Amino acid sequence: MGRLPDEFALIARYFAPLASGVPGAAGLRDDAATFVTPPGFETVVTTDALVEGVHFLAEDPPGLVARKALRVNLSDLAAKGAKPTIYLLALSLGPRVDEAWIASFAAGLEADQSEFGIGLAGGDTTSTPGPTTIAVTAMGALPRASVLRRENAKAGDTVFVTGTIGDGALGLSVLKGELGWLGAAERDALVARYRLPQPRTAVGPYLLGRASAALDVSDGLVADLGHIARASGLAATIEAERVPLSPAASAVLAREPGRLASVLTGGDDYEILFTMPSRYFDAVSTSVAKSGVPITAIGRMAEGTGVIVLGKDGAAMSLDQGGYRHF
Amino acid sequence: MGRLPDEFALIARYFAPLASGVPGAAGLRDDAATFVTPPGFETVVTTDALVEGVHFLAEDPPGLVARKALRVNLSDLAAKGAKPTIYLLALSLGPRVDEAWIASFAAGLEADQSEFGIGLAGGDTTSTPGPTTIAVTAMGALPRASVLRRENAKAGDTVFVTGTIGDGALGLSVLKGELGWLGAAERDALVARYRLPQPRTAVGPYLLGRASAALDVSDGLVADLGHIARASGLAATIEAERVPLSPAASAVLAREPGRLASVLTGGDDYEILFTMPSRYFDAVSTSVAKSGVPITAIGRMAEGTGVIVLGKDGAAMSLDQGGYRHF
Repeated sequence: MGRLPDEFALIARYFAPLASGVPGAAGLRDDAATFVTPPGFETVVTTDALVEGVHFLAEDPPGLVARKALRVNLSDLAAKGAKPTIYLLALSLGPRVDEAWIASFAAGLEADQSEFGIGLAGGDTTSTPGPTTIAVTAMGALPRASVLRRENAKAGDTVFVTGTIGDGALGLSVLKGELGWLGAAERDALVARYRLPQPRTAVGPYLLGRASAALDVSDGLVADLGHIARASGLAATIEAERVPLSPAASAVLAREPGRLASVLTGGDDYEILFTMPSRYFDAVSTSVAKSGVPITAIGRMAEGTGVIVLGKDGAAMSLDQGGYRHF
Repeated sequence: MGRLPDEFALIARYFAPLASGVPGAAGLRDDAATFVTPPGFETVVTTDALVEGVHFLAEDPPGLVARKALRVNLSDLAAKGAKPTIYLLALSLGPRVDEAWIASFAAGLEADQSEFGIGLAGGDTTSTPGPTTIAVTAMGALPRASVLRRENAKAGDTVFVTGTIGDGALGLSVLKGELGWLGAAERDALVARYRLPQPRTAVGPYLLGRASAALDVSDGLVADLGHIARASGLAATIEAERVPLSPAASAVLAREPGRLASVLTGGDDYEILFTMPSRYFDAVSTSVAKSGVPITAIGRMAEGTGVIVLGKDGAAMSLDQGGYRHF
C-alpha cells in the first residue's frame, strides 16, 4: 500500500531488535519461537487485545498504546504471581498507520521490555481496513502449582488491594472533558493512570503461597471482587472509606462525592486485588514494602454471596456492581 | 450492545467447553492459563491473525473461518516439526456478529480440536466497530533443540514439498468468478482448499532430525523457497514440471497454461516445503506414507543466491517472485 515498507523490512527494522534477548525467537526470521518451562516451574500465559476506538484513541501517542497493550497483559501475569518472560504480538494495522507510527510504537515496547524484563518472541503483522487492533500474548514463569486463582478465598480472609483505585476511571472522565475545575497536575496524573497501567509485577511473586485468591482490577473493584466471591462461593464486604485513593482522586471526591461510585466500579485500575489470611499480613507487608507499592486492607470474606460496600455511615451502599462489559 | 449475551455468558456457553480437556485453562474462569514443557521437550509458539475482508469474507461460514484461523497456525507448527498442544484466541467481534455466528464459530473450533488434538487454553473477547479480527496463538511440543528452521539447508540437499501446490490461489480465482468453464467438482475442490488449509501436522514430526530446513508455504512456493535460500545463504532451483498438482489444478493448467505463475507464486498452500539430504529420503518416504500425505522432490539447493524455476524447455522462467505481501 505504499505508506509502509513491506512486512519483512518492517519486521527487520522495528521488531527484530526487540527480540534480540530471546534466543528462541530466531531473530523473528522464522514462523515460530521456541522456549522451555524451567524445571520446577510452570508457564503462565494470557492474551488481551486492544482495539482503536474501543480501548485507545486514534490520536493517542503510539508508544503509549504499545505500552498499554503490553501492560494489560503484564497485569494479568502479576496477579497470578508470575514473573514476565516473553510475549507475542499480532498487529492488524489500520489505514492511518505509517512508518513513524510503527517506529514510535516499537520504541514504547522497547522501553517497557527493559522495565519489566520481558522480550518479544514472535508475531504477525497484517493490514486491516478497520481500526488498528493489537493482540498481545504474554507469558511468565512461577513455581509449579503455585499460581494464584480466583476461587480459593476462605471465610475470614482479609481483602487487600495494591496501589490506588479509581484513577483510571477518573482519567477517562478528564479525557471526556469533565472535571475541568481540577488542577492541571491532578488532571495529568489521572490521565496518565488511564493511559498507562502500572502492572504490579514487583508485588505478585510475593503473594505466592500466601494470598488465597487474586486477580487484577480491570472490570472495576466491586465487579472483580464479585468474581473472587462467586468463584470462591463466599460473600465479600469492603469499607468504602478504606479504599486507597491517590491525591488526585481524593481531591475529586472531596468536591464531587457522587463520583465515589465511578471510583469503585469504573475499572481500568490494573491493581492486584487479593485475599489473604491475617497470619501472612506482616510477612507480605515487609516484602512488598521493598517494591514501593502500598497494599491496603479494605475488607473481609465471609460465608454468603455477593459484595457489600459499606459507606461512611456503616450502611450498605447501592452501586451498579456490573463493572465494565465489553458488549 | 444487545445482540450478544454478555462476555461472561458467551465464554461459559461457547468457549469453556472447548477448554475442558486443558487442566491449566481453569475452565476459562481466570485471566491466565498454566502449562509446562515436558522434560526433554521444548514448546513451539506461533501467532497469526485473520481479518474480515482481508483473509476471509464476511459471508464465509463462521465454522470455516474459525478452522482457517486455527489451521494457519497449526500449519506453522507442523512445518517446525511440532505436535499441537494448546491455543489461545483473541477475538474482536464486528457489528454483524450475533450469537448464531459465535455458535457456529465455536463448533468449527471443536471439530478441529478433535482432528488435530489441540485444546483451548485461554482468550479474550471484545467488540470492534470494524471488521471481525481473530488472533490465534498456538503452541506445540517437540524434542528439545530439534526445531526445523529456515536457515540450515545445505548445498546438494533436495527440495521437497508435501501435498499439492496452487489449489489455494486457484480457489481464490474461482471465488472471484474466474475459471467458469471448470467443472463444478473441480471448482469446489479448489475453493475448499482456499477456505480450509490442511496443515500437515501428521508429516512434520517425521522430518525432525532429517530435514535441514522447513517452512509452510503461505507466501507462495517461489517466495517461500526464496526465504529458505536467503536464510541458508544458498540458491535453489526447481523444475516447474515436478511441482505436484491436484487433478483440478492440472485441469486448469491444461487449458490455461498461463496460470502456472499463479500456481507457483500464489500462496495460501499451507504445505510443508523442506530441504533434506538424499540419504534420508527412503526413511522419510516410508514414514510419511503412513500419513497418506504425498511428498514430492521438486528441486535442489546449490551454492549461489536466488530461486530459479526451470520450465518444460529447461530454460529459466521469468516469474514475479515476490509472493504475497500484506502491505
